[in-house]
Amino acid sequence: MRLAVLGAGAVGGAVAELADEYGHEVVALADSSTAAVDDDGVDAAAALQAKAADAGLGTAAPEDALAADYDVLVEATPTTLGDAQPGFDHVASALERDRDVVLANKGPVAERYADVRALAADSAGSVQFEATVAGAIPVLSTLSDLGPSRVDAVRGVLNGTANFVLSRMAAEGLGYEHVLAEAQDLGVAEADPAFDVEGTDAALKCVILSNRLAEAETESVAELRAATTSLAEAEIQGITDLPPNALELAADDGQTVRLIGEATRDSVRVGPRLVPENGTLAVSGTRNIVELETAHAGRLAISGRGAGGDATATAVLSDVNRL
Amino acid sequence: MRLAVLGAGAVGGAVAELADEYGHEVVALADSSTAAVDDDGVDAAAALQAKAADAGLGTAAPEDALAADYDVLVEATPTTLGDAQPGFDHVASALERDRDVVLANKGPVAERYADVRALAADSAGSVQFEATVAGAIPVLSTLSDLGPSRVDAVRGVLNGTANFVLSRMAAEGLGYEHVLAEAQDLGVAEADPAFDVEGTDAALKCVILSNRLAEAETESVAELRAATTSLAEAEIQGITDLPPNALELAADDGQTVRLIGEATRDSVRVGPRLVPENGTLAVSGTRNIVELETAHAGRLAISGRGAGGDATATAVLSDVNRL
Repeated sequence: MRLAVLGAGAVGGAVAELADEYGHEVVALADSSTAAVDDDGVDAAAALQAKAADAGLGTAAPEDALAADYDVLVEATPTTLGDAQPGFDHVASALERDRDVVLANKGPVAERYADVRALAADSAGSVQFEATVAGAIPVLSTLSDLGPSRVDAVRGVLNGTANFVLSRMAAEGLGYEHVLAEAQDLGVAEADPAFDVEGTDAALKCVILSNRLAEAETESVAELRAATTSLAEAEIQGITDLPPNALELAADDGQTVRLIGEATRDSVRVGPRLVPENGTLAVSGTRNIVELETAHAGRLAISGRGAGGDATATAVLSDVNRL
Repeated sequence: MRLAVLGAGAVGGAVAELADEYGHEVVALADSSTAAVDDDGVDAAAALQAKAADAGLGTAAPEDALAADYDVLVEATPTTLGDAQPGFDHVASALERDRDVVLANKGPVAERYADVRALAADSAGSVQFEATVAGAIPVLSTLSDLGPSRVDAVRGVLNGTANFVLSRMAAEGLGYEHVLAEAQDLGVAEADPAFDVEGTDAALKCVILSNRLAEAETESVAELRAATTSLAEAEIQGITDLPPNALELAADDGQTVRLIGEATRDSVRVGPRLVPENGTLAVSGTRNIVELETAHAGRLAISGRGAGGDATATAVLSDVNRL
């Protein structure tokens, strides 16, 4: 497959570098200001090196990447909320050309799922988005294999930053501010950690899961539009105002606290929850876990790296391979 | 899809009963002595009820099921070792008719993998076998999605009976014979538990995983034949002669013991291993877990029901849906 990769950060860069190993060719690689475009294949390592040296990815403009002769558009620009731009327009541009789209950007499928499906319904191209939920964890393909109508709920630890902070607070008896500062030093938390520790990121992933579950019960884009849950409708509580002794009290009872996101067909909830200390959901560090509540196979849980360039790129490239 | 289901035990019976919900039709259902065959669809519930009342599944002979007008043969007869008969001949019969095969029976893919692939190479039909390893856990499809060449090893708890015994011995401080008898009372262990507690069942699953990993590096059936690992070559130790104080000593060190199977491209090992008490592999009860060691995404772990009719049937039906 010939790939146009939009976004040259950790995920887009890793997709471009690993594509060859998966048997694909990158014909365009763009960030928000420059692009490398070559019908005979972009040298991704060289382009990324040039970008790192502030020379730009290449001599082309970002819009040239969208116009390139690709089979699959990989949308790995930063997630934006609301109208999900410019990611949404990138998706639209590819579908209008009957090309396939693989998303790492959560915006279009979290905030405008019905709009994306409406465009896909009129296109020969399809939209895949495994990488938008829990990085390397194949939750969406497992959901498709099980059949979304046979899954009642999906829950789990969907934000590595929040989980690092909580699991370290629990293991070391340290305070929130202390562990957050440590996480920032380690590069596990952003300078502005609000998106992660307030639960927004986990909620976006749950909105995507909820949309996918709801879709199984709808037969038209209009029905889907009515059935989707938006971020605004989600019940979200972060970990910033956890009572200081909550972890201690939990431990006395063989439990611990994790930021758990839960998606059903018609609801999204994210908040700190008590979970058994040795239970399935009590993963440590930046690890994520997703548990699917199935109709015929009980609970199925998948844990792994929920973020990181290479890990997330494997989800993107698995989507490409499934096309 | 029109299914012919061979084997009407827990798995075959559940496949026949759930097929309709997955959008498929059962045109034949057979055990070793009788069959129900109907081009317009077999009433699976009625056939199974008749079998339970010792009246047989239907008025047809088992060989009539093989001759039925099906798209997919579901082979769910009991696993046999060595020549893997009669399962192997069933697979051959379907492939010679250019039909697809979905296996729940481990024999053909554990003991005669290269023979199966040789037949498939000459057929328009394909062979799927998700249900042969760890029931509802989608380890083989995840391996395919990641690309077997990008997975170095697969390890895990692959036998629910052995895990029930070990985890209960550890949790309650009870002896092996006591817990085994309890497991037999509960129906978790067979009257003759050797196949499970001596590690053979876990080893067969690891042989299948090892074959799948080895296959990624081979380009012909002859190469595959040379690369496959047989059960005879596997290093297998069961849980029957665990030193009486092993679990206690492990617990003193924050560890526990699990029967771990490990498959690489060229080796299969099964034996009791020390694992961290709160670690990923320390699942309890009959639950199974599989951990994949990936090249670019670290460790990915999937846990769930490793056995049981309905759970294993979901793996069979997911295979059918992927055809």
